[in-house]
Amino acid sequence: MSSVAAPTPADIAAARERIAKEAVRTPLLYSPFLSERLSAQIFLKPECLQRTGSFKFRGAFNNLSALDPAKRAKGVIAVSSGNHAQGVAEAARIYGVPATIVMPSDAPAPKRMRTERSGAKVVPYDRATENRDVVVARVVEEMKGNFVHPFNDPFVIAGQGTVGLEIAEDCAARGIAPEVVVIPCSGGGLTAGITLAVTDKYPSVKVYTAEPDEFDDYARSLKSGTPQRNAKTYGSISDALLVPDPGPMGWEINSKRLAGGLVVSDSETLVAVGLAYDELRLVVEPGGAVGLAALLAGRLDVVEKTVVIVLSGGNIGDEMLADGIRAYRSSAGSRA
Amino acid sequence: MSSVAAPTPADIAAARERIAKEAVRTPLLYSPFLSERLSAQIFLKPECLQRTGSFKFRGAFNNLSALDPAKRAKGVIAVSSGNHAQGVAEAARIYGVPATIVMPSDAPAPKRMRTERSGAKVVPYDRATENRDVVVARVVEEMKGNFVHPFNDPFVIAGQGTVGLEIAEDCAARGIAPEVVVIPCSGGGLTAGITLAVTDKYPSVKVYTAEPDEFDDYARSLKSGTPQRNAKTYGSISDALLVPDPGPMGWEINSKRLAGGLVVSDSETLVAVGLAYDELRLVVEPGGAVGLAALLAGRLDVVEKTVVIVLSGGNIGDEMLADGIRAYRSSAGSRA
Repeated sequence: MSSVAAPTPADIAAARERIAKEAVRTPLLYSPFLSERLSAQIFLKPECLQRTGSFKFRGAFNNLSALDPAKRAKGVIAVSSGNHAQGVAEAARIYGVPATIVMPSDAPAPKRMRTERSGAKVVPYDRATENRDVVVARVVEEMKGNFVHPFNDPFVIAGQGTVGLEIAEDCAARGIAPEVVVIPCSGGGLTAGITLAVTDKYPSVKVYTAEPDEFDDYARSLKSGTPQRNAKTYGSISDALLVPDPGPMGWEINSKRLAGGLVVSDSETLVAVGLAYDELRLVVEPGGAVGLAALLAGRLDVVEKTVVIVLSGGNIGDEMLADGIRAYRSSAGSRA
Repeated sequence: MSSVAAPTPADIAAARERIAKEAVRTPLLYSPFLSERLSAQIFLKPECLQRTGSFKFRGAFNNLSALDPAKRAKGVIAVSSGNHAQGVAEAARIYGVPATIVMPSDAPAPKRMRTERSGAKVVPYDRATENRDVVVARVVEEMKGNFVHPFNDPFVIAGQGTVGLEIAEDCAARGIAPEVVVIPCSGGGLTAGITLAVTDKYPSVKVYTAEPDEFDDYARSLKSGTPQRNAKTYGSISDALLVPDPGPMGWEINSKRLAGGLVVSDSETLVAVGLAYDELRLVVEPGGAVGLAALLAGRLDVVEKTVVIVLSGGNIGDEMLADGIRAYRSSAGSRA
């Protein structure tokens, strides 16, 4: 599709310089609890601790930073169920430029509240009855601002790739080599950025996507070798992972470098959300917990391996977290 | 009191070697949200992400590691409302030795559950009607095991001091010098360990304790120059911070090196607990949040300063967290 070139590891290094002052360098966090549970050496990359509560701030801020100031001053437009929305809104606030976000009307309340708190204007649409692309096209036409694509953009992918660069650097600093990396995947931008960065430093690392049941376009695409589409466009608790198919730019990177795709049920995801709260003291949203869920559900043999699990976001509503806590506490593993 | 010498920075370095394999090296986490809110450069040291959910594992494991193996095999005994309990129980589990924990019957349910999950035997006592020291003496007499004091012990203080060593190292790695460090304080062991480590590397840093109203023995002791005692022994939501007076060994260190003591109300603490959940995606217990509460309440002028706030633990019951979230969301600051 795109005539714009996919990013390289050098673009990720450049992104890191651009975002360094504003983004949080999240830790690579060793988990004794999960290491014992999974008989492996488990590290977490908790992007729920990132500014705005998800990795999305990295890519959004990198995109805005790279814009010509006069162009940037016209403002930015994005479409998102909430994490990219908050990332773009916060980046726009920092640069003092207007932001308009097209957001599904069923987006989690805290995501909308925080997007508006950053000063963005939210334009809601109905996922079931309205065509998102038509709504976005109308807003772009009206506002004349810069559209920041959530994943099919080299600056966004490079920004998300800083997660992978930090993983690689922190592994090196600890003297460990990651053998498995698991990444929650929607359009594939985070996955592409991380995969590019970690395979650049550790060519033999096996990187897997994690997705919810019925939104497993990446898992099926990787298996078949060509991009596959989901039949559904909504209906999973992982509201951050409902993109219909792999973005072309991410696919170009991921199709050559990924080891495979893992798929989890919503109930497995809820258990992971509850475990993260009860045992790790981290607030993780469903879409951010699918990688952890996949390992807890035994989707991959990681025994004795050095594993990095990306927890990509933490913007969850109260009821959903309560559901997760209940699910975990009533599961067999909660007192083991 | 003690003929045993207080620890030195070298003891903290030795502790770090002993605990390295089992404890989590928690991050020094930059907070854009708090930095903007407080017009300062705010870093968090989230010990809620430590093994067992609080810093206490560090001191407990260091104490057990330093014991003669034959002596250690006799098992360990501790008294604690829950965080030291979990730390000792988990250290004992790792060494495969029995643990008995004397715990107030009103300790938060998750603290007791997790202590028992580590395999420890819990002996409850009633804070209002029973003398804790008598109960402990009886258990020590019966069990003949090693009593692990929660704070008046050089190995425990040195273990907690690894928190400060990590803060100092991470500041150096970032090229920043901490100007203010705020530490939740009970018996003073964590405070002593951190203070020893950070003032060793940064002699001009100002270190403050934070305590709940009516349990402000450290603040009053620092002001008067001699150890003061609290009138109450229970009755704050900060269940981890109810020790009646400064432990002598910690006092020896702290009285010479601290800049002062900050005091917060329980309602200020609740707001901090809720903010940590809503804005930082961290689960922090009341006793772990008093330092954050003190800064949010404006107890100290930190404008333009580089500040480290220690979040010492995250073992909180569901109702207490819900109270905190409500308190924060109804506060003026939640949408600012």
